[in-house]
Amino acid sequence: MQGLAVMGHGVVGSGVVELFYMNRESIEARAGEKLELRHVLDLREFPDLAYSDKFTTDFNDILNDPEVTVVAEVMGGLKPAYDFVKALLEAGKHVVTSNKELVAAKGAELLAVAKEHNVNFMFEASVGGGIPILRPMHQCLSANTFTEILGILNGTTNFIMTKMIKEGMAFDEALALAQQLGYAERNPSADVDGHDACRKICILASLAYGKHVYPAQVQTEGITKITATDVAFAKVHNCVIKLIGRTRMEESGKVQCTVSPMLIPGTSPLSMVDDVFNAIMVRGNATGDVMFYGKGAGKLPTASAVVADMIDCVVHKDHRKAIDWTDGATDYVADCKTEEMAVYVHAKAANIETAYTEINKVFGCVEALDYADAPAQEIAFIAPKAPVGETLEKLKSLSMQIEPINVFWVCE
Amino acid sequence: MQGLAVMGHGVVGSGVVELFYMNRESIEARAGEKLELRHVLDLREFPDLAYSDKFTTDFNDILNDPEVTVVAEVMGGLKPAYDFVKALLEAGKHVVTSNKELVAAKGAELLAVAKEHNVNFMFEASVGGGIPILRPMHQCLSANTFTEILGILNGTTNFIMTKMIKEGMAFDEALALAQQLGYAERNPSADVDGHDACRKICILASLAYGKHVYPAQVQTEGITKITATDVAFAKVHNCVIKLIGRTRMEESGKVQCTVSPMLIPGTSPLSMVDDVFNAIMVRGNATGDVMFYGKGAGKLPTASAVVADMIDCVVHKDHRKAIDWTDGATDYVADCKTEEMAVYVHAKAANIETAYTEINKVFGCVEALDYADAPAQEIAFIAPKAPVGETLEKLKSLSMQIEPINVFWVCE
Repeated sequence: MQGLAVMGHGVVGSGVVELFYMNRESIEARAGEKLELRHVLDLREFPDLAYSDKFTTDFNDILNDPEVTVVAEVMGGLKPAYDFVKALLEAGKHVVTSNKELVAAKGAELLAVAKEHNVNFMFEASVGGGIPILRPMHQCLSANTFTEILGILNGTTNFIMTKMIKEGMAFDEALALAQQLGYAERNPSADVDGHDACRKICILASLAYGKHVYPAQVQTEGITKITATDVAFAKVHNCVIKLIGRTRMEESGKVQCTVSPMLIPGTSPLSMVDDVFNAIMVRGNATGDVMFYGKGAGKLPTASAVVADMIDCVVHKDHRKAIDWTDGATDYVADCKTEEMAVYVHAKAANIETAYTEINKVFGCVEALDYADAPAQEIAFIAPKAPVGETLEKLKSLSMQIEPINVFWVCE
Repeated sequence: MQGLAVMGHGVVGSGVVELFYMNRESIEARAGEKLELRHVLDLREFPDLAYSDKFTTDFNDILNDPEVTVVAEVMGGLKPAYDFVKALLEAGKHVVTSNKELVAAKGAELLAVAKEHNVNFMFEASVGGGIPILRPMHQCLSANTFTEILGILNGTTNFIMTKMIKEGMAFDEALALAQQLGYAERNPSADVDGHDACRKICILASLAYGKHVYPAQVQTEGITKITATDVAFAKVHNCVIKLIGRTRMEESGKVQCTVSPMLIPGTSPLSMVDDVFNAIMVRGNATGDVMFYGKGAGKLPTASAVVADMIDCVVHKDHRKAIDWTDGATDYVADCKTEEMAVYVHAKAANIETAYTEINKVFGCVEALDYADAPAQEIAFIAPKAPVGETLEKLKSLSMQIEPINVFWVCE
């Protein structure tokens, strides 16, 4: 018999408890022993629930209960989650979390604490919700070197982009719809400015390459500047625009890690990941392209990943799983301007003919994009693959001819 | 230090050895100890290889080498693979295989032998090649009940279907191209008649629902009868035709398990899985739809799955992983005629108007499909969702009006 506790009874936390009681028989069969939910930590009271007697407002009830061996942290945020998780690991309890903010900010440190105390710290639910991604990356793909990881990591922004692409909505209109449907917060910044996706690509990069990447090190751009015109120009190039978290190991030993809108070719399976779905494309030197697709958020999908981790903690309670990465150096993340990419440029141009003459002089030759109702005095083109910093310098040299509106990378 | 052996030095076997030497450092880091390749079993000699001294033609060299703890079986076929694998497990050695024929025919028995001797028997590479699917299903999704599994499980047939759908090729033409490119064998029956996909859905169904499903129990239909006309009619219904392995647990406790061409809606991510790629859609009661996508075959993708299993065997050499299913009863697989599905019917009709009058009388109302260049005296329609057996009976009752050419299930 193993005792369990759940910290936080919000959307995910209540889902964890619901799922535990719903599938208890098969969960215990997988775990190989009986399980008992002993405490649910929340400041609120839930007198009407069948398990209302499990609630506590005192963290110490969990920390000091010797029967509790596995704890799920599903409160979110850094405080007090960080202190609680650290104390539990130090007390020799296994911890599972869905808290991407916590893992992106403190992953290396908490993994080291877990290792020191010979317990598991697992966080499958922190990336891709119910999509199995961290464990397959760590295990099944362990005979691979990851050449690149590209992910649609945020369902809210993907819903907005889908509405802009499929129904021609403007950004504001699509955001309002997402808010109305409960997909976006009233303050949507964490989603639309890319911070949520940033935390997730940090976790993926840290796991893939073994050193912690911190959110502050990642060049992060959201989707707020994307216009219906960009969507239409991208379509001419047979691409869709998606918010992409991307990471790649350079030969230098530094890691590229960015979050930004990117043009994705219509031939890529990422291009048809729509609505609130997420997908992560993992490119390996042996496997080639492997993609994981599913709901990146939501009560039961996320809860199922948390519960699966709890089961795995029970199974591996005596021989911890060797998930591990070390702290990264301050200069571990490469300057993204050194990355070689083709670049989409959408710009104002007073005189389109003169502009293209100069553009083609500077870039050699570019692919001009145009469509029937394109706004007057606006152009878009694809600058050829080159270090992004050089392309940006070239654009500066064209400041007499064009005034860039949006500049996005083009994915291969 | 753990000793390894590889049985079979064909496409996959040579890939396993290549990958082992290529990524040896990271493989040993994951395994947690040094690894030595001690034997490669093959009847042929390879004097020019750097590891030519490892070759043997005598299975006993592996069986009787006490240093060998993990063996990869990548010979394929049932004989002698079955005898070899069983003997190795009985001798207390961990075995990894990519051999879908072996697992589909003997999985329950070999898992029982492995359990009895407290060793691992792993076969991630047997389904989906380099796509991690069995382990994520078993572990990450362990808090789920699988409501349905749908897979594009054979790259050769998917390449042929892609050419028929995207380039309007006829079946024979697409098959000839696949043979020319080395994707299809000169005798393509195992692929185009669905036997390969059948073995894979048997493995998925056995793992998902805990009891062995044998290939002979599965209603299996290949792609040889699909015509360009079917592809065009399906398009009118906004669908593509794919060869689908499908399994679902009935409330009765029996399992549905089939391989057949199915109409897949254009809105499903399965619809855009093209060329030799595979994808498996796993539907869970908690996760919703989760899809795994990648190359289902090929030297290095498959080898990477084999090597990952070998690493996992080393990591779990003292505490075997609890992958397990039991033998199924002879009546465990349900009659597929009881399954409720919408059905696509493509038929000859001497008098189209009369035919539709009768069809609509019998079925209530059907959705008629038509396109500009459709062959004269041929019709296609979607019969409403109902037990398939009833639909087939109704079609029989229409034998004076229509002569069915193809009848396919429509996926939801």
